[in-house]
Amino acid sequence: MPSFQRHVFVCINERPADHPKGCCKQKGGADVRDRLKAELAARGLSKTIRANNAGCLDQCEHGVTVVVYPEQVWYGHVTEADIPDIVDKHLVGGEVVTRLLLPNQPHLGEQPAFPALRTGTTVR
Amino acid sequence: MPSFQRHVFVCINERPADHPKGCCKQKGGADVRDRLKAELAARGLSKTIRANNAGCLDQCEHGVTVVVYPEQVWYGHVTEADIPDIVDKHLVGGEVVTRLLLPNQPHLGEQPAFPALRTGTTVR
Repeated sequence: MPSFQRHVFVCINERPADHPKGCCKQKGGADVRDRLKAELAARGLSKTIRANNAGCLDQCEHGVTVVVYPEQVWYGHVTEADIPDIVDKHLVGGEVVTRLLLPNQPHLGEQPAFPALRTGTTVR
Repeated sequence: MPSFQRHVFVCINERPADHPKGCCKQKGGADVRDRLKAELAARGLSKTIRANNAGCLDQCEHGVTVVVYPEQVWYGHVTEADIPDIVDKHLVGGEVVTRLLLPNQPHLGEQPAFPALRTGTTVR
C-alpha cells in the first residue's frame, strides 16, 4: 500500500567531475541518504516514512538538497550530521528545521506547522 | 525558488537483468520520464511542474510507477502513451486518472479532487 506519512527525497544526482554546477553526489548526497535510511530504521519508521533517492532537484547551488512531501519543505546544504534533527524535529515532530530551509518558499507561508507523525498505527 | 505546483517522480530504478523483481528502468521508466518532460515543455510548464527522476519507489510489482506530489497520487503500469492524460487531466486539470491508480491509497479518501493548475502566474 503506497501510503507514506512522509516521503523524503534526497538528491544524489551525479555530474562529471569538471561540471561547473558540481552535483549532490559529489557533495555527499549518498551519505545523507544512507544516514536518513539508518535513522529511520533505528526508529522503526522505514515503512511510515520513505527515504528515496532522487535525480536532480534543480537546486544545485544549495549543496545537498532534500525535499519532504507532502508539505514540500526544501532543505539545502544538508549533511549527515543534520539528519537526526530532520528526523526527530520535522519528520516525527512536524516542526520545520529552520536553519536548513532553502530561501524563497512562498508555498510554506509564515511559520509553517505540520502534523506530528501519527504513531501507533502502521499506514503501510 | 523551489516552489513547484506539482512535483512528479518517475521511478527509473535499475536492477540486474536477472533480479526477480525486475525494475522500472527495464520496464520503460526512462521513456516515461522523457515523454513527461517533453509534454511539460511543449505546454510551457517545465518550471511550474517538475518531472523528476526517482530511485526505487518500493512499488516494484506495479510496473513503471509515478507519484505526484503534493497530493501523493500513485500511478502504476504507466507507459509513454499514458503521459498526455496524466499531464492534461491531472497535472493541469486536477482530475485523477483513475484507470492508472494503484490500489489501496487510503490517504486519498473517496473521489479525490485536486486544484487545477494556477495559470497566468509563474511560481518559480
